[in-house]
Amino acid sequence: MDMLFPHRRRALIPFLERSRLDALLVTRPANWFYLTGFSGDSGALLVGRRNTALITDGRFTVQAREETAGVRIRRLERTLYESVAQSLKDLKARRLGYDPTHLTVSELQTGRKATGGRIEWIPLTGAVETLRMRKDAGELALMRKAAMLAGEIVEFAVGLLKPGVREREVAAEVDYQMRKRGASGPSFETIVAFGDRSALPHARPTAKRLRKNELVVLDLGVILAHYCSDITRTVFVGRASKRIRTWYKAVLEAQAAAISAVRDEVACGEVDAAARRVLAGYGLDQLFVHSTGHGLGLEIHEDPRVARGQKRRLEAGNVITIEPGVYAEGVGGIRIEDDVAVHAGYAEVLTRAARDLVEL
Amino acid sequence: MDMLFPHRRRALIPFLERSRLDALLVTRPANWFYLTGFSGDSGALLVGRRNTALITDGRFTVQAREETAGVRIRRLERTLYESVAQSLKDLKARRLGYDPTHLTVSELQTGRKATGGRIEWIPLTGAVETLRMRKDAGELALMRKAAMLAGEIVEFAVGLLKPGVREREVAAEVDYQMRKRGASGPSFETIVAFGDRSALPHARPTAKRLRKNELVVLDLGVILAHYCSDITRTVFVGRASKRIRTWYKAVLEAQAAAISAVRDEVACGEVDAAARRVLAGYGLDQLFVHSTGHGLGLEIHEDPRVARGQKRRLEAGNVITIEPGVYAEGVGGIRIEDDVAVHAGYAEVLTRAARDLVEL
Repeated sequence: MDMLFPHRRRALIPFLERSRLDALLVTRPANWFYLTGFSGDSGALLVGRRNTALITDGRFTVQAREETAGVRIRRLERTLYESVAQSLKDLKARRLGYDPTHLTVSELQTGRKATGGRIEWIPLTGAVETLRMRKDAGELALMRKAAMLAGEIVEFAVGLLKPGVREREVAAEVDYQMRKRGASGPSFETIVAFGDRSALPHARPTAKRLRKNELVVLDLGVILAHYCSDITRTVFVGRASKRIRTWYKAVLEAQAAAISAVRDEVACGEVDAAARRVLAGYGLDQLFVHSTGHGLGLEIHEDPRVARGQKRRLEAGNVITIEPGVYAEGVGGIRIEDDVAVHAGYAEVLTRAARDLVEL
Repeated sequence: MDMLFPHRRRALIPFLERSRLDALLVTRPANWFYLTGFSGDSGALLVGRRNTALITDGRFTVQAREETAGVRIRRLERTLYESVAQSLKDLKARRLGYDPTHLTVSELQTGRKATGGRIEWIPLTGAVETLRMRKDAGELALMRKAAMLAGEIVEFAVGLLKPGVREREVAAEVDYQMRKRGASGPSFETIVAFGDRSALPHARPTAKRLRKNELVVLDLGVILAHYCSDITRTVFVGRASKRIRTWYKAVLEAQAAAISAVRDEVACGEVDAAARRVLAGYGLDQLFVHSTGHGLGLEIHEDPRVARGQKRRLEAGNVITIEPGVYAEGVGGIRIEDDVAVHAGYAEVLTRAARDLVEL
């Protein structure tokens, strides 16, 4: 574990060399955690070709020294970018890479001003994200655990579905169980949506009570040892109508088709198309209002995106969600989601929980 | 309530007029919630002088129609900024304001490209934040409730402090109680720090067990009806040493001095200085490693910042935290925090919980 973070920083060097950069500015907490182990949420990291410097404020300096190795910790004085300028001097850097998808327009202006004419600011998009997409064996082991726990929690949640219970009561119990079972918390706001509300793919739990003959969408995930999981199950409280059964079958088949399409070298758009084709066969593709999935890891939404027309090809080590759904106002929604690791030639489903239609 | 959101949008018009803007682009979820009531977290809002348009993707369009009034909802097609360009055409806008502290360098580039030569992009910083700083009577009523609940929860948390309990067990129980008592969740990751770990102002709860003769810092807040609260209490498990008692007294006096300084027209830096002066009198100012406080409201960190040298003057309707502390590696930390509303000529402390040193 000790060599893990220096190893990752070394993996950045080819990116620096390709753009002839002396250092890369890293301002996203998940990225600096990946590169150093620092879990604070304020500061900036500078990865040079030989040395690495972390600037953070007085609330985090002790923690930064405890969590990192081989990293110079600088306590932020005055403003962040004045301290960045100081550290760049120490690193003897002239050409600095920054990520234009992370830095705000103001931050770039402030940074340029603080570093004066000495530093040339060069855009470099997604270097650390590219490394993060390819999970190593240790990360995959952690993600299997996070996924297993999500499966256990969703089964626990199904057990809470009695007529009269409120969406937000179920969500509170679910989040509590995550913590009781070792998670640091939910990986996103837990979705518990009853009846009509299940037609909202990102419903927030409300005071609504569960009634007989309603669909229930449960979409949740945990953060366990820093890694995220994400699972969705849909159940019916009562006996489902023929229409609901057909829709459920369609979504389940769409998910299976997309999972079957997952392996290295396949374009993300092809995986998305596999799900869409099945739903189109049922005349339901217009009701599938979002993309098929997204990468996950240290963050709940990462690259690669599994969406219509995405040409990026899956690689071994990617972990993605596969989560087709159908949504109809006034009827409800059905979504089934699992987490899938990409391997050479095959996919490994990380989440475990029954997928057949449950009628309670 | 119906007129609340249109009223707030009208309050933006003088900002548009001053910069001769036809419309303002709003990309921060808390800002579009403030202006429209839309609680989704993906999309973009365009506030024109006469009309308002909200662009969001298929996951949120139903919800957007339910939550807003007087707002044209456009379903995102292809990319966000292509849809923004379409809506700008509908609004007949030419000069578009954007906030350079919110937009990334890439977003501005993408936006400019999508809108072609027709649209002039003009930076305008913090317009919505300026409105949000001045809470109205309805907001203050909600913030009083959120603050009251935080006080009840911190007292509940003190009741959990028995030797042997783990930091993360206390945090899990605390977050669960928030939800049980009506909060939608914690307003930030709950801090429960025992012993040495209390010296880290932003400690994350760990598996560490509480022992006799340790300091405990509890820093937590709830989101209730969209508004945040934030409270910190420090207790000692056992009989505190003379040094700890003196430090506690110093922090309590520093907090009282800062709260006494709070009223409209006072510069934020003066409030910060009031706390620092007291700690300097005890020779402890070097151990106060962060600023005295921050604004709060829909978000946990808002303007104004109550920090060293801040010249911005408090205004009636501001709500801020006052949270001095001292931290020593190997000893521990002491922090006392309350939420304070600024009124003409006086301060109203919103949080209620005993502040004297508790020895358990």
